[in-house]
Amino acid sequence: MEPTPTPLFDQVDNPDDLKRIPRDQLPALCAELRRVILDTVTITGGHLGSGMGVVELTVALHYCFDFRDDRLVWDVGHQCYPHKLLTERKARFHSLRQKGGLSGFSNKWESPYDVYLMGHAGTAASAALGIAMGDRMLGRKRHSVAVVGDAAMGCGVAFEALNHGGSLEQDRVLVILNDNRWSIAKTVGALSRHLNKLRSGTFYNKAKEALHHLIQAIPVVGTTLDEKLGDAVDMVKNMVVPGHLFEALGFRYFGPIDGHDTAALLEALEAVKKLDGVVLLHVLTEKGKGVPGSEDRYDRAHAAKPQPKKKPEKVPVEPCVLQPVVPLQKPGRSWTEWFGDSMQRLAESDPRLVAITAAMPDGTGLMEFRDKFPERFLDAGIAEQHAVALASGLATAGMRPIAAIYSTFLQRGYDQVFQEVILQRLPVVFAMDRAGLVGEDGATHNGLYDIAYLRCMPGIVLMSPKDGPELHEMLQFALTLPGPSGIRYARGNAPTANELPGWHGRHQPVQLGRMEILREGSDGAVLAYGHMVQTALEAAALLEKRGLRIEVVNARFCKPLDREGVLALCDRHDRVVTLEDHSQLGGFGGAVLECLAAHGPVRAQVQVMGVPDDILEHMSRAQIVEHCGLMPQHVAERFLADKPSHVAR
Amino acid sequence: MEPTPTPLFDQVDNPDDLKRIPRDQLPALCAELRRVILDTVTITGGHLGSGMGVVELTVALHYCFDFRDDRLVWDVGHQCYPHKLLTERKARFHSLRQKGGLSGFSNKWESPYDVYLMGHAGTAASAALGIAMGDRMLGRKRHSVAVVGDAAMGCGVAFEALNHGGSLEQDRVLVILNDNRWSIAKTVGALSRHLNKLRSGTFYNKAKEALHHLIQAIPVVGTTLDEKLGDAVDMVKNMVVPGHLFEALGFRYFGPIDGHDTAALLEALEAVKKLDGVVLLHVLTEKGKGVPGSEDRYDRAHAAKPQPKKKPEKVPVEPCVLQPVVPLQKPGRSWTEWFGDSMQRLAESDPRLVAITAAMPDGTGLMEFRDKFPERFLDAGIAEQHAVALASGLATAGMRPIAAIYSTFLQRGYDQVFQEVILQRLPVVFAMDRAGLVGEDGATHNGLYDIAYLRCMPGIVLMSPKDGPELHEMLQFALTLPGPSGIRYARGNAPTANELPGWHGRHQPVQLGRMEILREGSDGAVLAYGHMVQTALEAAALLEKRGLRIEVVNARFCKPLDREGVLALCDRHDRVVTLEDHSQLGGFGGAVLECLAAHGPVRAQVQVMGVPDDILEHMSRAQIVEHCGLMPQHVAERFLADKPSHVAR
Repeated sequence: MEPTPTPLFDQVDNPDDLKRIPRDQLPALCAELRRVILDTVTITGGHLGSGMGVVELTVALHYCFDFRDDRLVWDVGHQCYPHKLLTERKARFHSLRQKGGLSGFSNKWESPYDVYLMGHAGTAASAALGIAMGDRMLGRKRHSVAVVGDAAMGCGVAFEALNHGGSLEQDRVLVILNDNRWSIAKTVGALSRHLNKLRSGTFYNKAKEALHHLIQAIPVVGTTLDEKLGDAVDMVKNMVVPGHLFEALGFRYFGPIDGHDTAALLEALEAVKKLDGVVLLHVLTEKGKGVPGSEDRYDRAHAAKPQPKKKPEKVPVEPCVLQPVVPLQKPGRSWTEWFGDSMQRLAESDPRLVAITAAMPDGTGLMEFRDKFPERFLDAGIAEQHAVALASGLATAGMRPIAAIYSTFLQRGYDQVFQEVILQRLPVVFAMDRAGLVGEDGATHNGLYDIAYLRCMPGIVLMSPKDGPELHEMLQFALTLPGPSGIRYARGNAPTANELPGWHGRHQPVQLGRMEILREGSDGAVLAYGHMVQTALEAAALLEKRGLRIEVVNARFCKPLDREGVLALCDRHDRVVTLEDHSQLGGFGGAVLECLAAHGPVRAQVQVMGVPDDILEHMSRAQIVEHCGLMPQHVAERFLADKPSHVAR
Repeated sequence: MEPTPTPLFDQVDNPDDLKRIPRDQLPALCAELRRVILDTVTITGGHLGSGMGVVELTVALHYCFDFRDDRLVWDVGHQCYPHKLLTERKARFHSLRQKGGLSGFSNKWESPYDVYLMGHAGTAASAALGIAMGDRMLGRKRHSVAVVGDAAMGCGVAFEALNHGGSLEQDRVLVILNDNRWSIAKTVGALSRHLNKLRSGTFYNKAKEALHHLIQAIPVVGTTLDEKLGDAVDMVKNMVVPGHLFEALGFRYFGPIDGHDTAALLEALEAVKKLDGVVLLHVLTEKGKGVPGSEDRYDRAHAAKPQPKKKPEKVPVEPCVLQPVVPLQKPGRSWTEWFGDSMQRLAESDPRLVAITAAMPDGTGLMEFRDKFPERFLDAGIAEQHAVALASGLATAGMRPIAAIYSTFLQRGYDQVFQEVILQRLPVVFAMDRAGLVGEDGATHNGLYDIAYLRCMPGIVLMSPKDGPELHEMLQFALTLPGPSGIRYARGNAPTANELPGWHGRHQPVQLGRMEILREGSDGAVLAYGHMVQTALEAAALLEKRGLRIEVVNARFCKPLDREGVLALCDRHDRVVTLEDHSQLGGFGGAVLECLAAHGPVRAQVQVMGVPDDILEHMSRAQIVEHCGLMPQHVAERFLADKPSHVAR
């Protein structure tokens, strides 16, 4: 199959080329861009809907500004595929999200047109404001533009930025509200309702009309008039007020305008570009525009999974960095599915259980739970701070909240974990999905720090399961605890029993602060945390072929650590390797070392294996695990060296 | 001097007693309460202004609700002194902020009337909403009330809660906006300006008046009328809109009412108590009302320092838990003052330096800087998330931002540290004041986790000075770094040269990742981080009297750690103690242990000394240091035991 011809796009490699395309041909260019994105992302996987929704907006922005000098901050950054195509990256676009290829988000290390490496929502307005202030202080004149989605506008930090920006007069910032009414899940919150009202029409006209009718209806002057005037004020208020939440915050508000009409966009951008101060331009877009069947299915449009079988016959650009797409699917069920199922089973028997998500009902596996227990399902929006504090309130009232938040996004609610949960010793359960290396989504989405930032919190119980049934058991166990707890589990599939080689398969119940010995041996031991148990067992199987019998222990708990178990293990062996899918700084291994230091000399030399202390690029999960030296063979190597090998990264 | 008589307050020990006081005598009761607070806090120290401002509000709340059952969440919690006096704690009120006495904040461990242990701002509405939801799920009927200050309303998390709450219909929450126009520093941001407009009068009346005039001025019907109507809409909008930011968010807004008029408060509370849904009641109060000279000096009214010399002749209640007030002042200058001075010196020579605070210009020592360099001073409000992201924007533009945020409050901006600073490798300097144990402010204000939560972040440089001159040098050094850095320093005074016994006094320049040997010895070593160097030197002086010569090393850097220095130190000695004013989990000691594990066996047995893993109660700084086992004698004991003593806490 020949690729669809793209005569206009063929002329455009950068914004200067774009500016040479006549205005009336921009809609045709947009259609071509949309086709290129759809064709590519169908193969590579990635965030489809957001980018498809902002094709015209992106074209208009680059047509109007010069973002080699002007600054453009894409909030979240997963909507910037059209931006990448217009900024000297079209030849590499097919390498999206692959090792050595383009990242799936905006990435300052990739292009001078990208100002930030982004992935978490809500911070673009702050960043753009900071840039504008810095420019003013340095006497530099240029434009600073932030593009923020409607759901990201509900993030606390976005409000903080608007609140600050609205009080300033000397700084020039354009915030574009990209209102697609969807975001990741259906946008929640009052802001969303407010935007709905905004979308419905031009308020000035309606208000005028209402006043007109009113005045015609006034019969006489006097008390009646006063009453009527009261009514009028209410009417006007009801019609005028909804449009001006942003004006109340001090922004000059313009819009809403049709985000798929390039002429309207250019006109609006050219107008607001001349204005000083902080300006908000409200643009209505359709998420996933052009994606077949996406009109009312955000989950279909948000992200596409790669379809490796449908490779194009001909790659129309040089395959400089193209890597084969590594298949992600293994037999079995994902950790997320195990979690979702477990939540339903537990909710059936425990009426106090309530599930909380921060705009990720799908990503956290709670869609069925939501349908089955709508009264006990809460979506706080992209507002992890509020989600955590809300959970603490629910626990205060006597409920048993389980807050399902990705490891990396829980960073956003860290202070609420501390004050609202830890200091109150409340039984909130943090279910941390995507803990560890995530692969294609890259540095912003890896969950590499949760042990470090939670282990220092007094009274929290931290655990991680080796497989799906243990995840269920740990959730059940967490619900019996009087205080806070956290369970971390990975992206991808949980191993089946077959995938845990050499394990005797006998079930040992979860007990507070107790490890589980899975396989015995006298040539050393691996003490693994969470899903790395599988890696440890695979390493032991490799070593067995080399004549070494390695003990494998499922740590289960990082806090409280099984002190007796750790000490006994380290007295049984010369060599103990701790293994975790977390930064090797301050993680599970650190907990083991601190435990040993508090005790005194043991027989074993202990080595910590974890994720190196570096900012990791995107690549497939298998590739990044290999890159980080966390494959079974890497673990096995630690035992094959003549003496303990010490790797100082 | 006899205590002033308080005939009404003498009859009140709890809210039931309060309800027996006739309404017309409540103002007199309030006057008595104010006098009791003023007299007590003058002696004990504490947050004075906030409590003095809400005396009438507190009385009215307890008069109207029953907070043994209904739930009352005080945001921040430092305004709850009158609440404590009315809820069975009057007899212990003089023990405020002292060891074993009442805490200076709301504290759920202290009274069934306190729902939360609070200290950080902005989360009360979330918590109250969670409680209301939990109550609904459990079929319980009661009221859930949050009292939130105007500056705390600018916190992102407060907006997230309002945004969520405003979209709900079935939950019943009353949010009281305690608008004292001050908060800690002068409230910043657009919300503040918005509230200013709100305070200025009744908008409906103004709007009516305007319409009235308008209609009288309409000469004929036709196009002129239409134009006039356009004007009318603008006029009405300008007058009506400012009052309804909250209504735009879906709240039912009432107010503003005079927060010092008990009758008005009771009337308003009784009215809104009957309403379903989410209601916002706007109450105007005067911070520090009744504090002499506080009318326009927030810094005078915010917190009072204890005045030990002015003790009352007679303590009018049984002294059950009264502890002597430990004087805090030592000769020398505080770390905060050193920081403030250093900032000014550095700003003079480096025009790129910009200082950022999150509503703490005074607490972080930046008042003079603000006056001297107003163009390079930014107060982001109580909005640490935004403050950090703003700093990243400034760095992106080429400035050198120094974000001065207390260690505990930086937790609020953790995810922005990660995404907006670390992943971008931007040269933002985090100046973390109040790192370590703070004393009287208690658990919410201790800065015990910053090493743990920052050490795992790739590419950050973490350091801590032994004295004031080194703080200056480290700031200067941080400004030369290409990437992010953090400097932690403590509450209280930096030691003078005299207070560092046994140090040779020779200045060694700060070099990246290099420790500094301060004192030599062969009977073991203490490797101390930051201000604990003083403790280490004092311990060495104690040990010298016992015939032991201990090496003392100033670590200076926690990241990058001086790997060679640490290894050499651990090969020179049998016993090395690491010492830090940070949680003993995941801190500096953990970094040393991880470094050693990556290297392999060394001669020394290493022990980690830090703050025990527990929720610590408030007491004086000296008491809490003693309580945590971090006095010089505790360090010395580690070397006096026959063999290394291992303390497993």
